[in-house]
Order: sequence, then structure tokens, then C-alpha cells
Amino acid sequence: MEKTMRAEIITIGDELLIGQVVDTNSAWMAERLNEIGIELYQITSVHDTREHIIAALNEAFSRADIVLTTGGLGPTNDDITKHVLCEYFGTHLVEDEQVRTHIQQLYSARPDVLNRLTATQWLVPQDAVILENRVGSAPLMVFQHGRQLLASMPGVPYEMKIAMEEQILPYICNYELQNSIIQKQIIHHTLQVTGIPESALAILLEEYENQKPQYIRLAYLPKDGIIRLRLSSYGEADEQECNQWFQRLKALVTDYLIADKDEPLEVLVGNRLKQLGQTIATAESCTGGKLASLLNKHAGSSAFYLGSVVSYANSVKTNMLNVPEEMIERCGVVSEEVVRQMADTIRAITGADYSIATSGIAGPDGGTNDKPVGTVWIAWATPNDTFAECFHLGKLREQVTDRACMKALVGLLKILKQNNNQK
Amino acid sequence: MEKTMRAEIITIGDELLIGQVVDTNSAWMAERLNEIGIELYQITSVHDTREHIIAALNEAFSRADIVLTTGGLGPTNDDITKHVLCEYFGTHLVEDEQVRTHIQQLYSARPDVLNRLTATQWLVPQDAVILENRVGSAPLMVFQHGRQLLASMPGVPYEMKIAMEEQILPYICNYELQNSIIQKQIIHHTLQVTGIPESALAILLEEYENQKPQYIRLAYLPKDGIIRLRLSSYGEADEQECNQWFQRLKALVTDYLIADKDEPLEVLVGNRLKQLGQTIATAESCTGGKLASLLNKHAGSSAFYLGSVVSYANSVKTNMLNVPEEMIERCGVVSEEVVRQMADTIRAITGADYSIATSGIAGPDGGTNDKPVGTVWIAWATPNDTFAECFHLGKLREQVTDRACMKALVGLLKILKQNNNQK
Repeated sequence: MEKTMRAEIITIGDELLIGQVVDTNSAWMAERLNEIGIELYQITSVHDTREHIIAALNEAFSRADIVLTTGGLGPTNDDITKHVLCEYFGTHLVEDEQVRTHIQQLYSARPDVLNRLTATQWLVPQDAVILENRVGSAPLMVFQHGRQLLASMPGVPYEMKIAMEEQILPYICNYELQNSIIQKQIIHHTLQVTGIPESALAILLEEYENQKPQYIRLAYLPKDGIIRLRLSSYGEADEQECNQWFQRLKALVTDYLIADKDEPLEVLVGNRLKQLGQTIATAESCTGGKLASLLNKHAGSSAFYLGSVVSYANSVKTNMLNVPEEMIERCGVVSEEVVRQMADTIRAITGADYSIATSGIAGPDGGTNDKPVGTVWIAWATPNDTFAECFHLGKLREQVTDRACMKALVGLLKILKQNNNQK
Repeated sequence: MEKTMRAEIITIGDELLIGQVVDTNSAWMAERLNEIGIELYQITSVHDTREHIIAALNEAFSRADIVLTTGGLGPTNDDITKHVLCEYFGTHLVEDEQVRTHIQQLYSARPDVLNRLTATQWLVPQDAVILENRVGSAPLMVFQHGRQLLASMPGVPYEMKIAMEEQILPYICNYELQNSIIQKQIIHHTLQVTGIPESALAILLEEYENQKPQYIRLAYLPKDGIIRLRLSSYGEADEQECNQWFQRLKALVTDYLIADKDEPLEVLVGNRLKQLGQTIATAESCTGGKLASLLNKHAGSSAFYLGSVVSYANSVKTNMLNVPEEMIERCGVVSEEVVRQMADTIRAITGADYSIATSGIAGPDGGTNDKPVGTVWIAWATPNDTFAECFHLGKLREQVTDRACMKALVGLLKILKQNNNQK
């Protein structure tokens, strides 16, 4: 039997459809599914109503073999997923001894949680396989219907992630193995480029696009001044063929290349600093801590990140970063002189090898004719020299600060690459 | 004619279905639609393929009157939305003089953008209403089909937001007016509570839930230690009736209440500080700049936010926050003594009225038996006193830092409320 499996996600909850919650789960789940060779065909968000959930299940199963649902598994009345799944699969709830013991142990120190509503969580569908939810009270349920599978998980992101990694994905892999289902080889390769408009890049790659096989797809994803160029194959090409086309693509965009993998820039920066055994500190005005927060987001950041001064008020720039009041008056707080001073001071105080400083007008107020909203000065201090550059990054506050962080990280990556090459 | 309109969103792009991009657009759009009385029934994410887009359009129009699509409007080959919409609505592309002039003006300083691929952006469907995209080259298209409307927008979030606010939403409101469509009154009221498990809260509210009318729905949304309790009505109840039930709900949870609206905690903190004419500074270890970044996220933060020291390395705690090395050795860096010192110092240096300091073990490494991963000390310094508290916030790095920020802000809100009451 040569067959592969296709999945869909149904996210359940009124909160998604009134804008109270952003669905961050689906993207994470999609990536994990692709890693085990399962294509995600569609994501559907539906209300907490019986009719809507059932309609979505019918439609999803008409297109896919695996349906993953998130949400609607809490102990409160607004959560109905478990009951609707019982109806859909023609089964009913029974008490599960193992789930009861697990929940009682999980909350043994929390008598306020072990109440009669929480007790409804150990009622589970008789015909479902129940997998352990290590960190919460909602049971993980897997229903099998012919060759089709449904797995239901909580919508709380960290519970969902643990459920997927420890239970659902291994279950699916094992199911495929037992049923002789071939895992499709889904391959994605991504380059990150900057300094060229999307349309100009596409013209540069026109001949390449005509030459490459149709079953290797090329996508352009522009964001915050960076374009991610992705080659994808869904089972038709093998790793060798994909890699050949990827290397050709890389050679064509080498002038604009900042990374040959789809990792966030702060991870690329962190990894390179760790390789070099070097450190960084930041001094932020308009980015307001976002740059520090990005650099600290991932595990292991204490190996290369020392600290930051977020100097939103001018008095903090003066007191903590030795920016003379006179300089602020003479040059303005958004100026080359000020960011250079900020970068040099934070590097000296912390003893870091590198530092980055930002000062700009994030808006919506504070713009002038000379320095409109979106004007951002960034400085990079290194063991040898200090560089500074002025950018114009748009009109919307979030856009300006996000792009400023990207520019800061791209600039540092280039510096690190040069220093690396010199070694 | 008494009728109301229902909407769906279709987000188009392979990147959503392989996990390369999180769909943040839909939640924002949902909120805006609700504000003008339009219920969002479903969100569907589909691939950049003709068949998939057409199937999704057919399904969406079988349930809704308005379909909003995002994505697939770039000038590159992988973007096909415009062509598929032409096919779906039986029309073809024609050159649009106005769009051409607009794009040429928009990029007048960027000859590298004004190339032959960008020129394809002024080809638009003959039978669509074209609205101006002030900040990009992709045209905004509205198709009308009987009483049904489709609006197509770019997927880049800031372009989509400007398009919705300036063009699409006004167009829809005007369309409703001209066609005598009654705007449904969609009402959402949200309370934020903390310090009680979700199940215990539901038991507390059992009688209330039985008494309230069915058409006023109550939802529980737990996240990062805070539960949002939302009352919703989709046209059946008026503002007065909703408000009565909201006030009753509020009275029942008063012991746990932190806010009676659905605004992010950092906004509530910022607004209260602005009312009081007071300021804040932060000193962050484990939260690594996230708290500063949250407090600076929204416009107007310079009125109350002074600055932060992110002291990831111990040397930064010693040099910049006057935490004695001896204290770190004696008490450990994650301790009451250290966070108190951090909070007091940053308040003194910056001259802020309040300060918050954090120190904890975000993980995955660094945990001990005494202080496992998730242990976080937080201190709040005020004009009168300094408080500190220890929390255990879970096992996952992101969860720990997110929850630490929430705890820090909840603590400050309580302090501000007390100080307010005393005045």
C-alpha cells in the first residue's frame, strides 16, 4: 500500500472569531506535521457550537485523513468539544480511573482545583484512546474511524505543545508504521535576503524559475525589510534534487544573502556569538526593550547576552549612558552622535565585545519635518570601531520598532560575518 | 428589510500552512468587524492554489454575505489571488490609470521598485471596485455578487490594517446603509480576574449562569494566570440588559477582579499612571527586556515610562544596579534581597515613582532542588515601601517569562489601586 496522509486543523473557540485571541497554535502544529511528512491542507476556526463543529468535522474529513482539533476542553459550560465529539463518533462518556488518578496527583497540593467541575475531566469518551496530558486536566483524545484519525487537544499553547510532542505526534507516526503508510518527504529550504525589492528579486530569478521543475515551488515572503525565499517540495523531489536547486538559488542571491536557513535573526546572531565566544549588550531608546527581549527569547542566551539599558527618558540617557545634555540639545536625541555615545558607553560599562544602540521616532507623535516618524538611528560598537546608520522605517509604531530590531540584527550579522572571515 | 450580515475570512498562503507565518491578521479583523455589528462566522486558511481558493470561496459564500480575503497579491509568480478572483467572478484584468499613477508616485524615489513586475500591479479586474492601497502596490479589490461582497487585501499586517480602517470597513458600512441592512448590535464585556482556579470560578458562578438568559453567553479564557470572563450578545440583548448582567457578574467576582475591560494589563497600568501623573522604571533579569517592551508597546508610553536596566549578567547587576557581589553569593541571584535591591536602585537612579524588578530561572537550565525552573522573585518599589513576592510559574521558558510579566503588572495594578483609593 503506497499512500500518504494529509491533515487539517480545526481550532475551536468563540474567542478566535471575535478577535480576543490570536491563533498561534496552528503555525507551530503545521511545522511539526511537515517534519514528519504530513501535509497540512487547511486550517479552520469555528465557534463553540455543536452545529458548527460537526459541519467543520464533516468537511475536514472529506479532504483529509487526520484532523487535529484544539480548544473547547475546559471544565466550564462554554466548552463543548468533548460532548460534540462523542456525538460525532457515536459514543458516550465513561469514568476513567487512570485519568482520575493522574488529575488527583497533578493537583494534590491544590484542593481549590479538585472540585466537582474538575471531576468532570475524568469522564472520557468510551471509544477514544486517551493519552496523558502531563500538565493539565483536559484529557487528550484520539478517535479512529476507518483509516481516519482525529486527535483533540487543549487550546492553551503550552499544553498543546507538550501534548503534540509527547503524545500525538508519536501516536501518528506509530499509526502510519502499523498501517504501512509511507511518510511523504516534505522538504522546505529557506534563504533570507535583504536590500532588494521583492519585484526586482523576482526579475533576477526569472530564468531560474523557468528552469526549475514545477514540483519544486518557490515562494517570496517579505517582512520587516527581509525577504524569505522558500523552496518547497511535497514528496516529488528528493533531498539531493532540492539541495541542488537550493544551492543554485543561493548563488544567484549571494549579494543580498543574510542567512541560508529559516531561523529568526536573533537566533543566528546568538549562535554566531556563541561560536565566537563573544558577548553583546544593548542600549535602547525607541525599541524600548524589544531588542533585549528578542536576544533573550531563546534558551542559552546568558552565554552571550550581558544586559541592556532601556533609556526611554532623556534623563536616563544622561545619567546611565553618559550622553551629555549638551549633545542632546545640539544634535537632537535621534542623531548619530547620541546613538554612537549610547553604544560606546553600554559596551564599556558591561564589558561586552559588541553593543547595539537605537534611538528613533516610533510615533505616532514626535515627528518633525526634518525627522519624521519612522526615523531611526542605529549604532554598532565593536572591538575595532563604531558604525552608525540612519533608517526610515515607516509610519506605524509597531512596524517601526519591529523593523528597527531587524535592521539592528542584520547589521550585527554582517559585522560578525566579516570578523569571522578575517579569522 | 430587516437583515444583518455575516462575514468569513479566508487567509491565502502556503506559508500559513507550513507554519512559516502566524496569522495575526484574522483576530484584528474579527474585532473590527464586531465593532461595526458584523459577526465573523469562520476563518479558513488555504494554499496558494486555484482549486483550493475556489473551493473555499464557494463554501464561505454558502454561509456568509461578506468574504474578506488576505494574501496572495504580491507581484511574484507564487501569488495568484487576483487571477483566481477574476476567474471566480467571470471578469478579466485591465490596466487602471489611477492605480498606475498612484504606484508611480508611491515609488517615485525608488527606481529599483518601478520595474515591469511592479507594473503588473496596475492590472486590475474590470468588474471590481478598486480602492486605494495608500502604503503598497497591491490594489484593494471589492467584488459584488448579488447581495454578497468580497474584499481582497494584502496579507502584510500593516498594509491590511490601513486598508481595513481607511477603505474596506467604511465601504462595508456604506453598503449596508444603501441596502437598508440593519447593523446587529454585537456586545462583548470582559472582566479580568486572578487568584482563583477556572473550575472554582465556574462553581462560584453556577447560579448566575443558570439565571442569565441563554442569548447572553459567558466564556472563560484562562491565560498566564489570568482568567478573562466574557459576556457576549449577538443582537438579542441591548446594551442596558447586557450591562445589568455584567454588573451582577462583576459583583460576584469582586474579590478576584483586576480589570473590568479587555485591555492588556500594560495598557491599564499605563493609563492609571498617566491619570496619576506618575512614572515607572524597571530592572529585569529573567524577563530580559520583555516587561520594558510591553510597557513601551503602545503610543504615549513616554509619559509614564522612564527606562530599564536589563541585567542579565551578574556583573551588570553589580555595576549598574548596586547589587553587592556578597549579597549574590550569600542569597543567590534569584532571591528576595536581590530583587529588592534591584527595584530600589532603579527607582533611585531614574527618579521614577514606582519600579519593578524581576529575577528568576526561566529555564530550561539553571534550576536546582531549592529553586526549580519557574521560580521567580518580583519586587515593587513605591514612594512608601518596597514589596517582594516569590512565584512558581511553570516549566517552559516562554511561559515563565510571560507569566512573570503578568504577575509584575498585576502587582503594580493592585498597588496603584490602593494608592488611588487613599487619595
